[in-house]
Amino acid sequence: MQYSTHDLNDTIVALATPTGIGAIGVIRLSGKEAIRICNQVFRGKDLEQQDSHTIHFGTIRDKENRIIDEVLASLFVGPKSYTGENTVEVSCHGSNYIIQQLIQLFVQEGARMAQPGEFTLRAFLNGRMDLSQAEAVADLIASSSASSHNLAMQQMRGGFSDEIQKLRQQLLDFASLIELELDFSEEDVEFADRSELKKLVKTIQTYLHALIQSFDLGNAIKHGINTVIAGRPNAGKSTLLNALLNENRAIVSEIAGTTRDTIEEVLNIDGIQFRLIDTAGIREASDQIEAIGVEKTMEKISQSALLIYVFDVIQMQPEEVRQDLAKLVQPDMHLLVIANKMDLNPHTKFEHYFEKIEDGGLKTEDFEFLSTISPAQWVPVSALEKMNIGFLKEKLYQSVLTEQVQVDSTIVSNARHFEALNKASESLDDVLQAMDSGITSDFVAMDIRRALSFLGEITGEISTDDLLGNIFGKFCIGK
Amino acid sequence: MQYSTHDLNDTIVALATPTGIGAIGVIRLSGKEAIRICNQVFRGKDLEQQDSHTIHFGTIRDKENRIIDEVLASLFVGPKSYTGENTVEVSCHGSNYIIQQLIQLFVQEGARMAQPGEFTLRAFLNGRMDLSQAEAVADLIASSSASSHNLAMQQMRGGFSDEIQKLRQQLLDFASLIELELDFSEEDVEFADRSELKKLVKTIQTYLHALIQSFDLGNAIKHGINTVIAGRPNAGKSTLLNALLNENRAIVSEIAGTTRDTIEEVLNIDGIQFRLIDTAGIREASDQIEAIGVEKTMEKISQSALLIYVFDVIQMQPEEVRQDLAKLVQPDMHLLVIANKMDLNPHTKFEHYFEKIEDGGLKTEDFEFLSTISPAQWVPVSALEKMNIGFLKEKLYQSVLTEQVQVDSTIVSNARHFEALNKASESLDDVLQAMDSGITSDFVAMDIRRALSFLGEITGEISTDDLLGNIFGKFCIGK
Repeated sequence: MQYSTHDLNDTIVALATPTGIGAIGVIRLSGKEAIRICNQVFRGKDLEQQDSHTIHFGTIRDKENRIIDEVLASLFVGPKSYTGENTVEVSCHGSNYIIQQLIQLFVQEGARMAQPGEFTLRAFLNGRMDLSQAEAVADLIASSSASSHNLAMQQMRGGFSDEIQKLRQQLLDFASLIELELDFSEEDVEFADRSELKKLVKTIQTYLHALIQSFDLGNAIKHGINTVIAGRPNAGKSTLLNALLNENRAIVSEIAGTTRDTIEEVLNIDGIQFRLIDTAGIREASDQIEAIGVEKTMEKISQSALLIYVFDVIQMQPEEVRQDLAKLVQPDMHLLVIANKMDLNPHTKFEHYFEKIEDGGLKTEDFEFLSTISPAQWVPVSALEKMNIGFLKEKLYQSVLTEQVQVDSTIVSNARHFEALNKASESLDDVLQAMDSGITSDFVAMDIRRALSFLGEITGEISTDDLLGNIFGKFCIGK
Repeated sequence: MQYSTHDLNDTIVALATPTGIGAIGVIRLSGKEAIRICNQVFRGKDLEQQDSHTIHFGTIRDKENRIIDEVLASLFVGPKSYTGENTVEVSCHGSNYIIQQLIQLFVQEGARMAQPGEFTLRAFLNGRMDLSQAEAVADLIASSSASSHNLAMQQMRGGFSDEIQKLRQQLLDFASLIELELDFSEEDVEFADRSELKKLVKTIQTYLHALIQSFDLGNAIKHGINTVIAGRPNAGKSTLLNALLNENRAIVSEIAGTTRDTIEEVLNIDGIQFRLIDTAGIREASDQIEAIGVEKTMEKISQSALLIYVFDVIQMQPEEVRQDLAKLVQPDMHLLVIANKMDLNPHTKFEHYFEKIEDGGLKTEDFEFLSTISPAQWVPVSALEKMNIGFLKEKLYQSVLTEQVQVDSTIVSNARHFEALNKASESLDDVLQAMDSGITSDFVAMDIRRALSFLGEITGEISTDDLLGNIFGKFCIGK
């Protein structure tokens, strides 16, 4: 797909609402001629004489003067519109037939079918939003949980791109000064204060590092966290899954029509989605772990960020748990070890553990056979009696919140931004290194330019047709 | 479902656009408090101070002041709205999550989830449209062809209900006069001119008969015409089907996304949909027509309004065609007999037929073996060479247009209206009979009242909660 500024001269048209049966459908026209084109087929008031942000009832007729529909035409006179251009939103009866007839009519009158994301592309090209904000529009539409919605909303309303733009401008000023020095290179002047520059680069680096670090969480929020539940037969995996989901289902059912993943179960904890993947029970003897079916389990585990290992606290021996974990756990993976069936004999053998749970946790030595993992990683529960399930959910949630990153801080969720941030950061490392090693200013200037370019890609101050095509081509038509 | 006027005091809310992923979604609020409820959660201008038919940008925030979305609020101050009540249409980003959050918020602020069709029900109860117009809204949304769309549009814009209302009023005046006579029954006065009444009843009857007669066509337009294609193996049924559809496909493909019936092939001729049902070939010997599989063919034929019988004009003997038709044709069914493969030897045996086709038709005696059917019912074609396919389509179209009914005249397509029209017509027959037989005025008055009641049901001047529930319960939510 080719996106060029040339296209801005056209008037584009598309259905803005989902296809399907509904009470109304909204067709959006945007471009210089949007109001004139609509006016050509509209019978009612003269739309070209009306104020922006007004709504007009009328009929739309074809060339044979047949009424296609009774509609409401909403006028937005540029630049006070989503795209920044003249825009008409035609609200018609929600029939596919009518919608197709109307769009055909607008095309006959000179409009062109919009490409995917072209309305938002125009909003970007007309300076109504920066690139990262435009990308957030698609994320907002796709958001299906409170936290992914918050993330997209924050990004759409400016998010970190304002800050990046500001820091980038300061860096740009330094780059100009250094480049000015190069013009006077024979005179050995220094317009750019090197210690100030270093300070600025370090400030930017701190900011970039925080953003880069937030990506794991951002990604988890946006796409959910693949979570495998594994354990031997009768460890109580299914009961645990039900215990986790039962409470959750009450929440889900309040929101009628929420799209749920049909392949896996989705557990929503404080707005973060965990995609729970159940596995076949691991066979009893450790030798049999290698048996058929386990390969599949291992494959699922390798695709997941979080492993919930469940064992029966009455039946299992410490050595067996250790063997299972040795087989299952893979590097760079979060782990929770669930000691299940704590209800069976709580008042004798396990009484004191529950007391400690209420105090906020258990010490490693309480379950000395689990010494290989930290106490924070394991949770004693009774899935059957729904004992400690809330605590388990807290643990699940915390396992995602790595280190310093907090949900309410600025979070990067877009892989493109993540890549640009990393590259900008590397370039800034080069800047610092170049300055420390006394390399000539022209190399420093080059590294700064490279960092500026990567930062500019995020906000769209620097963009190519390919980049824009790549971003907006993934949008739905009509947005 | 219970529909009572009591509900009109509530403010109702629903998504007006289809569910699914789209650029925008529109949530509609209607009722006394619609603008106030929206204003409670809207940050921007004070919506209660704005003019009708204006659009306002703002954010909608939840109780914790978190932004749920940036929206456009369109205001319609009653009675200048679809429902006749205060209405707000909130245009938000097309995310299910956002839509659910917004609707929940409006419900928290005092709105109630709308029942199916409740917005249109309110439009009816508030006198914005009559019942037949309200029903046409649902038909309009469901319309999928030019003619079904025209039909619904005509009905929505008044259609025959204006005329019925007018005639009903005249009849009502007579009924009042006759009932006045009853009060003076001992004095033997006659306020109502009997010959005038007769004239009016006959005028109404003429109108009702025309409407009743139009129902077959109306029904065909609305639902399409079930058409069975039958014939012996190698008669060329599939080739004929392709010949019919190939030309049509070009038309269909111009209208991207047109919903097509996946079970059968749909042929659209001048806006009327023929649902073509292919059948297994009829076995060669007439005895075998009773064989397994033929039962199914017969069942399909019995469910259809039109039978296209295809035979191979080279291979078949007149007697065989006659036998097939005797088995297949059922009463009250339109029939077209297709003499196929006319290309194989046109210049010798069949040359003169083609000449006559160009003249506009053939005489029965030309194919004396088809003497049992009228010449208008048969069409010689070559499916392979696509010879005469256009003529066949004309024949198909004409076979639907029975007798006097024309597509551009007033057409009834609603089974409820058809039933009420028939009952009203019967009651009027009773009126005429009563007057002719000199039965006392109170019986005449009773028959007139009955006719008035049936006519009133069509426009909704007479309606019950059951009737309304039945009609609007079939609407989608949000309309």
